[in-house]
Order: sequence, then C-alpha cells, then structure tokens
Amino acid sequence: MEVIVPFSTDRPKSRLADVLSLDERSAFARAMLDDVLDAVEDAGGEPRVLATDAVDVDRSVTVDDRLLTAAVNAALDARLGAETASSRPENDAEPDGPPEPVAVVMADLALATPAAVERLFEAGRGADVVVAPGRGGGTNAFVASHPEFRVDYHGASYLDHREIAAEIGADFAAVDSHRLGTDVDEPADLAEVLIHGEGRAATWLREAGFALDASEGRVTVVRE
Amino acid sequence: MEVIVPFSTDRPKSRLADVLSLDERSAFARAMLDDVLDAVEDAGGEPRVLATDAVDVDRSVTVDDRLLTAAVNAALDARLGAETASSRPENDAEPDGPPEPVAVVMADLALATPAAVERLFEAGRGADVVVAPGRGGGTNAFVASHPEFRVDYHGASYLDHREIAAEIGADFAAVDSHRLGTDVDEPADLAEVLIHGEGRAATWLREAGFALDASEGRVTVVRE
Repeated sequence: MEVIVPFSTDRPKSRLADVLSLDERSAFARAMLDDVLDAVEDAGGEPRVLATDAVDVDRSVTVDDRLLTAAVNAALDARLGAETASSRPENDAEPDGPPEPVAVVMADLALATPAAVERLFEAGRGADVVVAPGRGGGTNAFVASHPEFRVDYHGASYLDHREIAAEIGADFAAVDSHRLGTDVDEPADLAEVLIHGEGRAATWLREAGFALDASEGRVTVVRE
Repeated sequence: MEVIVPFSTDRPKSRLADVLSLDERSAFARAMLDDVLDAVEDAGGEPRVLATDAVDVDRSVTVDDRLLTAAVNAALDARLGAETASSRPENDAEPDGPPEPVAVVMADLALATPAAVERLFEAGRGADVVVAPGRGGGTNAFVASHPEFRVDYHGASYLDHREIAAEIGADFAAVDSHRLGTDVDEPADLAEVLIHGEGRAATWLREAGFALDASEGRVTVVRE
C-alpha cells in the first residue's frame, strides 16, 4: 500500500521549543520521520514523503509547500479521484475498479511499530475509510479507498473525518492503537517515547540527556 | 475470565476537583465504573468489583480498604498463588495445572468497549502477563496467569511490570489500545470521553454541560 508521510521542514515541533533548541527539534523530528518510514516499510507499505521543502532522505519525496490539508487533498486527488483513476499508469489492471487504498501517516508517530501499521493496513482493506485517532481527536493516520474522501485537519478532525465519511456514504472504522494515537507534540509526549519507543527517536532523546521522572506522581521527563 | 475492577469510594477522581464538585466526581466515577463493568461483561468476562468500601452495584463486590497495590496483590494471591491453587474449590478440575488467567481492569477506563476488552483477553491467553499501558506508563489493565506475578502500581508501573515478568521468567506482551490506554484522571482526559465514549460517562458529561472546544488549537472541554 502506498503511504504518504507528510513532513514539515519549517518550524519543526514548535511546541517543544521550551525543552529543545531549533536545531535539536529538527534533528528529533527527523529521527521520528525515519522511525515512521521504517515502520511503514517493515509493515509492507511503500512510504512516500510529502514535504514542505526538500528533504535529504533515501525515499521518494514530493515537495508541496501548501498547508497540510491542501497538500494531502492534492495527493488524494491524484490517487483516489474518480476522474484520474483511468489515466494513472499504475492502475492499468483495473482502470474502472475502485481505487487502491492509500494511507496517510503522520511523521511524528514515534511509537509506531510495524505491527501497529499492519493493523492500520488490515483495517483499511475492510472499510472505505479508517482512522487511527490521536489524543485530542486528531487524525494521526488513515487509509482511504473511497474516491470522494478528502481531509480537513483543523480541530477534532477525527470527528470531522467520520462525518465526511458518512456524508459520502463510505464505511468508516477506527483503529484502536495507543502507538498510532500518540503524536509527539508536547514535552509530556516525550515520556511516551522513552517508555515505548524502540527506534531512533528514543535513542536520540536518551543521548540528549532525557530520562523519565516519576518523582511527582505523574511520569514526566527531565533533562540531565 | 474473572476480571477484578478496583474502585475507590473515597476521594474519587481528585485531579478533576477543578472542574467537578465532590458529588459530581462521585457520580461521574460511578458512571465510568458501570461502563467498564458492562464492557467486561459484554466481552465475556466475569467482573468483580474490588472496592475500598461498600458499593451499591448489582455485581460481586469485595471490600478491601488497603491501598491499590496491596489489595490487588491479595486478590492475585487468592487466585494465582501456587500454594492456594489446590485448595480453591473452583479449581477442582485442574488442581495441579497452571492457574486460570485473571484480569485486572481499572474502573476509570471510560472509553473501554467490548472489542477492546476482548483484545485484552485474547492477548492474555497467549502470554503469561499482558499489560495495556496507560498514558504516562501506567498499567490500565492486565491479564496474568503466572503464579508469581504481583503488581506495584507506583510510578511508571508498565515498565516495572514488564521487569517483574522478566524476573519471574514470564512471557510478557503489551496490548496496543488507545481505548484501554486512556484512564480518565485530568480535565484534558474529559475530551477523550466526549470524542470516543459511547456509554454512561459520556452521557453524564454531556448532561452536566460539557462540550468540546477546539477554538484554541488543541481540543479541550468547556462547561456551559
């Protein structure tokens, strides 16, 4: 399955500015991206980075400097849009069949594992639209195979996407995953990376001196 | 599967004191308990409330006023303890076999659904110890069938329980669930209940005037 991974090169992870410098945020964001790309590939997906600017990564990269919603919808237009399906060279076998499902997985899902991504793919083969919600009702990952599905990432987008699916008559399912539900935006999210992360992002944090701190009851991170 | 649901009747949900009165917190905690008991039962489990004081609930209730770790370990002693296995009347069929798995599911998992609990049970039949981690590394639910497994809920207990499993030579697995990973402790958690809850707790919040608020970027709740 083709998996689009949107990645912003400007103002990376701005909500971590209190604990990481700009250069550190860039490096950490890149470590998370690499973890996500590996998890997608190990789950059998074909990752394609959709970046706001050039990225030096050993994978397919498309640059689109528009905001997230517009850039993802352009990618969906190209892949799911009914009018383009018959003109896609890779779609020769089934020019008039339903579109192949396409996935969009955020680049900051530092807890993503191949098993979690496989569950997303599997759900995506069983419904027209499946979403892995993030904390706060975001849309951390989805798979769509309905030609009319488009995104709107503003606000509680999980609810909006469920509503959009209903409006276009698409089957909808949620993927119940703590790993896919954890997007790393704020300092508190770093604890999740240290607890559950198995890749570069967790290693990067440890090498930068971050450690878990349970002294205040709720588990947080401290930097040594 | 027998499922112990610990429930504290004193100081219910104290971290919600800024947004709910004591009576409201009691009512909301009780709505969450009822949702959890229903989800466990609908998943084929046999729920048993382990309460710090008497609770008027139409299910089996054991009162144990000790702290959570001590009360849960006493329950595990009675069910898994090697020395007690042969004396348990319900264990006549297999007096010398491995203990039946027993689950412990927290009473504040307001997003729990039968499907999520079924995944917990299924994982629990395939490993000696399985844990559904909560945000911050807590242990929101677990299933154990190893006679030596005991809990310690202090701090990042998910990591401690994984370590305990390793020390006693028990297979360990995690259950990757956003629903089971969401324990409702703080005001921000209420947004999760409004977004994903399907039971009494979500209804209670709506009737108390709570609604989602996405005006500030991150989704929170407001009370009308």
